[in-house]
Amino acid sequence: MKKSPLQKARAAYQPKLPIVLTGAVKAIEGKPTQSVANQAEIQALFPNTYGLPELKFEKNPAPTAGKPVNVGVILSGGQAPGGHNVICGLFDGIKKIHRDSRLFGFLMGPGGLVDHKYIELTSAIINEYRNTGGFDIIGSGRTKLETKDQFDSGLEICKELGINALVIIGGDDSNTNAAVLAEYYKSINAGVQVIGCPKTIDGDLKNECIETSFGFDTATKVYSEVIGNIQRDCNSAKKYWHFIKLMGRSASHIALECALQTQPNVCIISEEVEAKDMTLDQVVDYIANIVAQRAKYGNNFGTVLIPEGLIEFIPAIKKLIAELNNILAINAAETAGLSSAQLEEFILSHLNEENAATIKSLPTTVARQLMLDRDPHGNVQVSLIETEKLLSEMVGKRLAEMQAAGQYDGKYSTLHHFFGYEGRCADPSNFDADYCYALGFNAACLINAGVTGYMSSIRNLVKPAVQWIAGGIPITMMMNIEHRNGADKPVIQKALVRLDGAPFKKFAAQRDDWAMNTCYIYPGPIQYFGPSEVCDQPSLTLRYEHQGK
Amino acid sequence: MKKSPLQKARAAYQPKLPIVLTGAVKAIEGKPTQSVANQAEIQALFPNTYGLPELKFEKNPAPTAGKPVNVGVILSGGQAPGGHNVICGLFDGIKKIHRDSRLFGFLMGPGGLVDHKYIELTSAIINEYRNTGGFDIIGSGRTKLETKDQFDSGLEICKELGINALVIIGGDDSNTNAAVLAEYYKSINAGVQVIGCPKTIDGDLKNECIETSFGFDTATKVYSEVIGNIQRDCNSAKKYWHFIKLMGRSASHIALECALQTQPNVCIISEEVEAKDMTLDQVVDYIANIVAQRAKYGNNFGTVLIPEGLIEFIPAIKKLIAELNNILAINAAETAGLSSAQLEEFILSHLNEENAATIKSLPTTVARQLMLDRDPHGNVQVSLIETEKLLSEMVGKRLAEMQAAGQYDGKYSTLHHFFGYEGRCADPSNFDADYCYALGFNAACLINAGVTGYMSSIRNLVKPAVQWIAGGIPITMMMNIEHRNGADKPVIQKALVRLDGAPFKKFAAQRDDWAMNTCYIYPGPIQYFGPSEVCDQPSLTLRYEHQGK
Repeated sequence: MKKSPLQKARAAYQPKLPIVLTGAVKAIEGKPTQSVANQAEIQALFPNTYGLPELKFEKNPAPTAGKPVNVGVILSGGQAPGGHNVICGLFDGIKKIHRDSRLFGFLMGPGGLVDHKYIELTSAIINEYRNTGGFDIIGSGRTKLETKDQFDSGLEICKELGINALVIIGGDDSNTNAAVLAEYYKSINAGVQVIGCPKTIDGDLKNECIETSFGFDTATKVYSEVIGNIQRDCNSAKKYWHFIKLMGRSASHIALECALQTQPNVCIISEEVEAKDMTLDQVVDYIANIVAQRAKYGNNFGTVLIPEGLIEFIPAIKKLIAELNNILAINAAETAGLSSAQLEEFILSHLNEENAATIKSLPTTVARQLMLDRDPHGNVQVSLIETEKLLSEMVGKRLAEMQAAGQYDGKYSTLHHFFGYEGRCADPSNFDADYCYALGFNAACLINAGVTGYMSSIRNLVKPAVQWIAGGIPITMMMNIEHRNGADKPVIQKALVRLDGAPFKKFAAQRDDWAMNTCYIYPGPIQYFGPSEVCDQPSLTLRYEHQGK
Repeated sequence: MKKSPLQKARAAYQPKLPIVLTGAVKAIEGKPTQSVANQAEIQALFPNTYGLPELKFEKNPAPTAGKPVNVGVILSGGQAPGGHNVICGLFDGIKKIHRDSRLFGFLMGPGGLVDHKYIELTSAIINEYRNTGGFDIIGSGRTKLETKDQFDSGLEICKELGINALVIIGGDDSNTNAAVLAEYYKSINAGVQVIGCPKTIDGDLKNECIETSFGFDTATKVYSEVIGNIQRDCNSAKKYWHFIKLMGRSASHIALECALQTQPNVCIISEEVEAKDMTLDQVVDYIANIVAQRAKYGNNFGTVLIPEGLIEFIPAIKKLIAELNNILAINAAETAGLSSAQLEEFILSHLNEENAATIKSLPTTVARQLMLDRDPHGNVQVSLIETEKLLSEMVGKRLAEMQAAGQYDGKYSTLHHFFGYEGRCADPSNFDADYCYALGFNAACLINAGVTGYMSSIRNLVKPAVQWIAGGIPITMMMNIEHRNGADKPVIQKALVRLDGAPFKKFAAQRDDWAMNTCYIYPGPIQYFGPSEVCDQPSLTLRYEHQGK
């Protein structure tokens, strides 16, 4: 593997650990826990792993000699910067327990456990991946661990390799499945512990006990770098409106963090659109009015940040999508052989009045995409909709109307961007490099403590790494019951942007100023070697959320 | 202006100067020069500024006291990282000549000179912009300085402000116009010198005397950062082919440099496509075969770099575009009122057989775009064509044919990216920060030497900055006569990728390996504070071009 100069220099970085993890530890038990909601149902589903205490590690003045452990590790779901460092921390952690400990990596996600595809992660391999981005050390995948057959097949290979514990690095769904797996293995006394690690760039896996998921910090810094560069371009040429869509699935954490870092003219927050029950036209009006206001001062340029999930949060579009999916599901046979044009006609003639009006209000390309593009389950592919183009086109139409009415007199040229894949595998920031390494090292401590169904937890993250608090949180504690894909399921509550939270409030208090005045900030690229205020600061979301705490 | 921590830290960076420019200098004249071609015609057009000698600065052991100079500076055309540092170097340079020297910045490009829009650039303003990206200090614009009226209007404001010299920071076209302006002012003894500075991220303004244009280094490093991140993602998920289009106008320097830095599976070089007279189908076949070969080993993923200008280099498309432009020009009246559908029909019925076949071979969306989207002059808007989607779609069709013929058995999912605006205003790399500062400082020395019609020249760029050679090159020396927009014009020769040059040869020697094996390099973000091998290396293009010299 030929390496860039930065890769070589960065390999030598020694991630910082919480001081408590630098020596021998003992687990201090807190009080028994309860799930965030639906306590009785969750307890019934997790009889063996419900109600466990929170754990906090403290120094152990009288440690006993450790025994070798064999551990399996799995990367689950979308990539996030720092995944390799979780594995490196885990490796160093189990080697510290005993030099004969071994680490196995299951290949291409949870499917590797089920299909018995794995490699042993030796120190030679581990050293190639320290402080690097990507999940390529063992690959990732989206197979969901949900069935007894999968669990039993996984157990087979664990037994074969003498594996005492599995570490699953994933988002809310993967950690939900980790909890189910932990419960099952515990229920049959399989002798395999299961530990989760909170991963996702989307930032939607966090709660009272998990301050942030790893990868969010780095990904938002990469996006903010390029958004800042675009804003500087925008402010130099003064002739384009840039519509920038950002990854993040349903939640708008990424868009909000990038807005706080770069101060764009407009940032839409899906959760606010939903809370205010806004129509697409109202979102368009909001943007068009800012464009028109800026034009009055000769500023025919600007930037608009759009969260990927926006379209699903607009009540009218939600209804339209639900009916589209329904029409196609109940008329599957009838519509199978139709041409695109016939299918369009069929759909339009079957939509109710309200939804027909909604689809007519959309640009033709988007309406077509909604009617014609299907995923393998026959559902509308919301993620394929180019919301950034949809909005810029609708804003253009609105401005033309305003111009005709004498309410607008400016120029409106647009450019579009979508950032997502640029950030998921970036080299981790110092924060994520440290945080991930600590999460992995801490997972080894949880294994050594003999527990299962816990998520590795590192807290106090706005403080320097030495002051971080290490421990474990029972995954069941984060769960509630939700209706998904037609059934009630126990799941980890997804954290959306809270409109009463400090990050949103900071944004809301400043956005009118950012809209009219050009207040762009240019964060520049992530730095690894410079002054601490440049290299080591965690995300603004994290800092604002914990300000004064 | 609220600043990011990096902006604050970076403001303190002191750009490195060639050692010769740190003291007093005298200009040493070389031999008289000749234009690269069409010597007689160029000489006739530039009687006062043709044949000037190259200049090289050396230490001046007996300097005389300088007099204050008033200088006007103009940013012309597209943004490039480092423009602010050219201005900062120029400012420091003229202040070194005499503390009462003054710098005026014309606003929003050459139009500011013509329309008398300017600000005085004081040290308070200059200090806000040291080592920053963007052209926002005075803005940029694309007005072309070409007419006597414009020149005379510019002279008026120069006289009013007591300006002795203009520095025009621009690409090949802007420097061509700078030469024309210099000739005109000289011919009327206006008393205003004109100095050019070589700017463009595209890298197509270079020759025997100008080793590289500024901005290329930083922009390609930003693109390589995000391409590297995407490649790491690609190699982790192993399920997508990423088609990545890169800015660069006609020339493929940016794509080639990024390929050298990141080692993608495929990179198309427009100049090679043209030299080999390749059809679009052949380009598609080339990519499809690599996709199919990789699929044989289970590698259903990869990356493809595509230069922005590709489509114009494919002979068949070139012919098609020429005929489309012609049909619309000679039938302007007849086609004015037609609907989209009618216009399509009209065009299809008027195309010759060969071009009709070409347009039918294109995906519908692209064919429509070619027929229907026009620029204000009625021409096809080639730059709007989403070449990355065009190619991925055509490769998909070809793979389907190959699959039907039993030649391919794989999965083919695609994602698309276009990088351009992300890099034009990035904070300059150390190389560009130093190079730009030296170019500006050196321009002040050329002004002090009393010359006009010169381009600021800093050479020996692969060596440490202290060893750089400073001087001036007569702009007429870089010129030839080309047929543009229906007339013969003296222009600076555009530098396209040379297929016999070291950078292309390095690429060509390795690309088969990169195609089949996954050899991705991950350059990571530009670093400013780390080890020299990480922070200070110039582009690979520059290094390979000067290897062994």
